[in-house]
Amino acid sequence: MSADVRGGSARSELADLPLRDELRGELPYGAPQLVVPVQLNVNENPYPPSGNVVAAIAAAVAEAATTLNRYPDREFLPLRADLAAFLNADADVELQPSQLWAANGSNEIMQQLLQAFGGPGRTAVSFAPTYSMYPEYARNTHTTWVAGRRNTDFSLDLRHAAELIAEHQPSVIILTSPNNPTGTALPLDDVRVVLDAAPGVVVVDEAYAEFRRAGVPSALTLLAEHPELVVTRTMSKAFALAGGRLGYLAAAAAVVDAVRIVRLPYHLSAVAQATARAALAHSAELLATVDTLRVERDDTVSWLRAVGLRAAESDSNFVLFGTFADRHAVWQGLLDRGVLIRETGPDGWLRVSIGTRDEMRAFRTALSEVAKDLLDPRMGDHT
Amino acid sequence: MSADVRGGSARSELADLPLRDELRGELPYGAPQLVVPVQLNVNENPYPPSGNVVAAIAAAVAEAATTLNRYPDREFLPLRADLAAFLNADADVELQPSQLWAANGSNEIMQQLLQAFGGPGRTAVSFAPTYSMYPEYARNTHTTWVAGRRNTDFSLDLRHAAELIAEHQPSVIILTSPNNPTGTALPLDDVRVVLDAAPGVVVVDEAYAEFRRAGVPSALTLLAEHPELVVTRTMSKAFALAGGRLGYLAAAAAVVDAVRIVRLPYHLSAVAQATARAALAHSAELLATVDTLRVERDDTVSWLRAVGLRAAESDSNFVLFGTFADRHAVWQGLLDRGVLIRETGPDGWLRVSIGTRDEMRAFRTALSEVAKDLLDPRMGDHT
Repeated sequence: MSADVRGGSARSELADLPLRDELRGELPYGAPQLVVPVQLNVNENPYPPSGNVVAAIAAAVAEAATTLNRYPDREFLPLRADLAAFLNADADVELQPSQLWAANGSNEIMQQLLQAFGGPGRTAVSFAPTYSMYPEYARNTHTTWVAGRRNTDFSLDLRHAAELIAEHQPSVIILTSPNNPTGTALPLDDVRVVLDAAPGVVVVDEAYAEFRRAGVPSALTLLAEHPELVVTRTMSKAFALAGGRLGYLAAAAAVVDAVRIVRLPYHLSAVAQATARAALAHSAELLATVDTLRVERDDTVSWLRAVGLRAAESDSNFVLFGTFADRHAVWQGLLDRGVLIRETGPDGWLRVSIGTRDEMRAFRTALSEVAKDLLDPRMGDHT
Repeated sequence: MSADVRGGSARSELADLPLRDELRGELPYGAPQLVVPVQLNVNENPYPPSGNVVAAIAAAVAEAATTLNRYPDREFLPLRADLAAFLNADADVELQPSQLWAANGSNEIMQQLLQAFGGPGRTAVSFAPTYSMYPEYARNTHTTWVAGRRNTDFSLDLRHAAELIAEHQPSVIILTSPNNPTGTALPLDDVRVVLDAAPGVVVVDEAYAEFRRAGVPSALTLLAEHPELVVTRTMSKAFALAGGRLGYLAAAAAVVDAVRIVRLPYHLSAVAQATARAALAHSAELLATVDTLRVERDDTVSWLRAVGLRAAESDSNFVLFGTFADRHAVWQGLLDRGVLIRETGPDGWLRVSIGTRDEMRAFRTALSEVAKDLLDPRMGDHT
């Protein structure tokens, strides 16, 4: 917020307020929200809901609105049953509603998990490069944050992971599969190794799981044997419901009981519940875009490699590619051409979300132009 | 969650999980959600939105749903402008959108404020009896919680307050006006005394402010001179939007800047924003119920006193009344007759939310029956 939009005569500065020391100088998290023709920066599903789905959501909300003077159902078991049914079909498991929990985005889920199992005097471990919000959840919950590293192909280094876990005895370990921003899915054997070494809870963040390639399993299949495992999901990506903010977890019912202690009462509005249930009732239609996006993703990886760039293996709806001596210049060059991607990941890499066929064509055209100007030696011969 | 609804073969108990020590044995916060004919327990507005308002909400959500594949506006300035316009009219002030902030219920607002200004090594002070969620916000954010006391008429004891503030040097002080569960509004002079003594931020929780009696001012009128003041409001009560979960604050823009650092990105869904804006566009209609409820409240206070009970002065949509040697028996007796009120407040007192005229008649009838059986000496002569 710039000073010029401040109002009132009580002109104070952040410096005058008792803001916590660790927050001073911090900026609100988030990618730039710019209006450009081609938005490929926050891993959204490019396909808006159909008229059919919009009408179903509006009807569900209209029904919910007739009793909006009342507080929402704090336990929202009907929604949890719908989510269980979806996961049971997605991963061939048998979850009960009591094993599901939902919140306003998977980031609220993560915050609740760290409030219950992390906090002062406790440590959370993850393996970088990974989702850049994790350290902020840790900061906000006063959990000590330890970031291990990954192999150069972005897979887990199991020996390093075991050492880090033994050293720090984390109460929470966050794995991410497929990983953001690399797209890397974890083999279940790797997850098992971490589960066996973990002294506390292991969270597998599967925000992008619906995009995984055929034959890649979900950690949901390990839940029946591992009461310390939590799998998080979201409706923001495959379900094309980023604006609806519905994240959720599946775990042993005891984990849900723990989260229920720290959740703010009535955290999930009646409108949010109605919206999510309407979308879940149209899962087949909403998820039909996933196959299209998978094809486009694989084509994008192939093209990037064909023009001489590196592209990480991706089981997600984005691709990490590079490397560039000056990645910011590439990012800016694309933006100048109306294509917004994300400047994130290890030095020299950039991340592009998978859009429609037309959007990916615009991305390839823009990148071909930009990379020529940059004279990156890795790319020179191929554009 | 009872054990009988647990699923999967991973049967674990909370005791096996690394739940934080201070959470062990705690139960999820919240009044019982029972289905009874007369619900007067959580200070809801008894009047559901009209067909007109329901249609406006559905239309706004339908419009928002066409782009639900995209993340919501993180800064939601249009909603903040609408909220500023409402407050400016309500309290005759001149707030700018940059001075407003909203979240999923005022409890998320409070959590954000304590994340920014409270936390480990810091103390928050309030004055009991007051809202029973405050200690839970403090617990969830690892803020030391100190509860001072009030005078026997539930007004602030300013000398005691000054001593408590001097002793504990709280980074956050929470006042509540009108106070829950007592209904007591704070004179602005009292708020000024606390502001002058406060070493940090002073939050005045005005969740019920729209119900205040004529001539009772809002702390919003002090914002222009007090950059350390935060006033919180909600659309759950007067706006009859408890199911929509929209809490908000007004403060110096620097306070909003601080909260923006700790807020989870995209915490307020596009659907929540659309719902709140549609409701705000119908403020006049929604708030028309406030006058009716005020009359019913004052009639309830008069009746309670007429039958020999004590009833606290109320500027809210509920009344604290008593006292009873066995308040639980009175609460249960009312519930047995289909009237659900809240067992909260100091020993011997009960709280009843103000419902429709018919609902309050049912309350009076039930209480007359129940109190007879109880043979409470204070009430015996009057029923």
